[in-house]
Amino acid sequence: MPRAAAEELVRTALQNSSTSAENAASVARALVAAEVDGQAGHGFSRVASYAAQARSGKVDGNAKPEIVQQTASFAGIDAVNGFAFPAIDLAIETLTEITPKTGLAGVGIRRSHHCGQLGAHVERLADQGLVALMVTNAPKAIAPWGGHAPLFGTNPIAFAAPRKDEAPLVIDLSLSKVARGKIMAASKAGKQIPEGWALSPDGQPTTDPKEALAGTMIPAGDAKGAALALIVEILAATLIGANHSYEATSFFDAEGGPPGVGQTLIAFAPDVLSGGGFSDRLEGLLNALLAQEGTRLPGTRRLDGRSRAERDGVAVPAHLHAEISAMT
Amino acid sequence: MPRAAAEELVRTALQNSSTSAENAASVARALVAAEVDGQAGHGFSRVASYAAQARSGKVDGNAKPEIVQQTASFAGIDAVNGFAFPAIDLAIETLTEITPKTGLAGVGIRRSHHCGQLGAHVERLADQGLVALMVTNAPKAIAPWGGHAPLFGTNPIAFAAPRKDEAPLVIDLSLSKVARGKIMAASKAGKQIPEGWALSPDGQPTTDPKEALAGTMIPAGDAKGAALALIVEILAATLIGANHSYEATSFFDAEGGPPGVGQTLIAFAPDVLSGGGFSDRLEGLLNALLAQEGTRLPGTRRLDGRSRAERDGVAVPAHLHAEISAMT
Repeated sequence: MPRAAAEELVRTALQNSSTSAENAASVARALVAAEVDGQAGHGFSRVASYAAQARSGKVDGNAKPEIVQQTASFAGIDAVNGFAFPAIDLAIETLTEITPKTGLAGVGIRRSHHCGQLGAHVERLADQGLVALMVTNAPKAIAPWGGHAPLFGTNPIAFAAPRKDEAPLVIDLSLSKVARGKIMAASKAGKQIPEGWALSPDGQPTTDPKEALAGTMIPAGDAKGAALALIVEILAATLIGANHSYEATSFFDAEGGPPGVGQTLIAFAPDVLSGGGFSDRLEGLLNALLAQEGTRLPGTRRLDGRSRAERDGVAVPAHLHAEISAMT
Repeated sequence: MPRAAAEELVRTALQNSSTSAENAASVARALVAAEVDGQAGHGFSRVASYAAQARSGKVDGNAKPEIVQQTASFAGIDAVNGFAFPAIDLAIETLTEITPKTGLAGVGIRRSHHCGQLGAHVERLADQGLVALMVTNAPKAIAPWGGHAPLFGTNPIAFAAPRKDEAPLVIDLSLSKVARGKIMAASKAGKQIPEGWALSPDGQPTTDPKEALAGTMIPAGDAKGAALALIVEILAATLIGANHSYEATSFFDAEGGPPGVGQTLIAFAPDVLSGGGFSDRLEGLLNALLAQEGTRLPGTRRLDGRSRAERDGVAVPAHLHAEISAMT
């Protein structure tokens, strides 16, 4: 269906589930964008779960995010246990306004929720000419190095930089070796997973996806990835007053209190900081990279998804279409 | 020898090699601190090479770093092709002053040089009650993912956070799977290296350390590590107007022009950003981590080195003592 119709479908389903029109529109935009960009795990598959959480009150669908602290280079945003996307909209608006004045500024969002594909958020800042970095924590999935019980979320890091005459460079990576969704898919399909993806609940390597889901994800880069997950945990949660990953409730079910995780964004105005010439220098770097056979820039697959959606519309898997339509 | 005597020895050697007293003192402090912290690759072994670079003019030993741009939350520092440490001293002084006012502030250092162990720099900010993040680029050593020729430096990331009644938490990691020094050591010892550390110049896995040194370092976390190296490259160089890794001359020999690499530091005032309670919350997180058997906090080995140095003084390997003493 056309992208606008898909957004309308999701918006209506959410609005019928204790969510304000404004928040439903923000969430619908983000979920459909994730689907278009090829991140189905952050797309239509989330609608029913989001709606159930809004109905149970685990997420406040009517929350209005607000700036509760502000300095020349920082805004503290309270998402008030609502959906993450309206708070991120406010963060992007705020950073777009303040970053060019100081060259460097940040936002911390607390009492937040699942924020989907991070790359899309930093890309919006890059669309405004800013370089941006974003981290978030998430319900526990990765053990500390040497340990066996989950403590950190998959704690992703995203980065974007504006390019001359091209879509922004976007890097978006979680700190688990593979996405948890791959293990869920193997579990549903009754397949084994390769060794090296996850540990069982007693900390042993496993090829059984069910054991893996009950256990922990192995971090990308082993001890270094676990150390990066600790850095992200402190920046996205401890530093800005959000819940830690091990304190957060699930993003999937409607049980318990709100997860209350955090997101931290840092933006840089390259024209202010570089002393001029940022665009040409970045193209020089990326051209040097692409001059090597076998390389490609990270994040380019999303652009194929966007062309496809513009040409053919957005494909909504039949079971998800039925699930969402039932709420409209 | 006592730590102060070791610093005096290094300071004198540098001062006798076209370096101002003030700069020599700053460099000596940093190199001896690295040696004490167990980072011999950034310690006494660098003195002769630093001195040769100052004598040849590759490094300007008399340079005075200066702030060339300043906003409420950012300072651009020109290291004027001198040693990195005096510029980092200025960065730390500046961040200590401005960060508590805005909660978040940064510094970019351009026309810089080898900055040794990054962890020690962010730790100094944590000693002032700040959370800090630092990145630097370095002469090329890592290929872009899928490529075969070095493009990025080992592009380390360091992070520190102040703790209640304890030395700061310090994380300091390079983005190569193993330190290049380990391959140099294997090469000197005539030993093979394990597969997975490095690629030969034609992009093939190798166990020959000489091939590895001529080739590229494999990034930690494979494609994700290479993507992180690109993020660091843009933050530490492109964004702040420094040379890219592939443009930088060697940190070791006295040939050619100055390397001109960059360092970017970002500091956060946790009392301003967290809404209070940062210290207790951080202890909660670290205690939850340490409660798992088999875990330890990153960066704790440096503290053992410091206790040992205080008790027994600093051991200067005989050949390095002779090399440095010859310059005094």
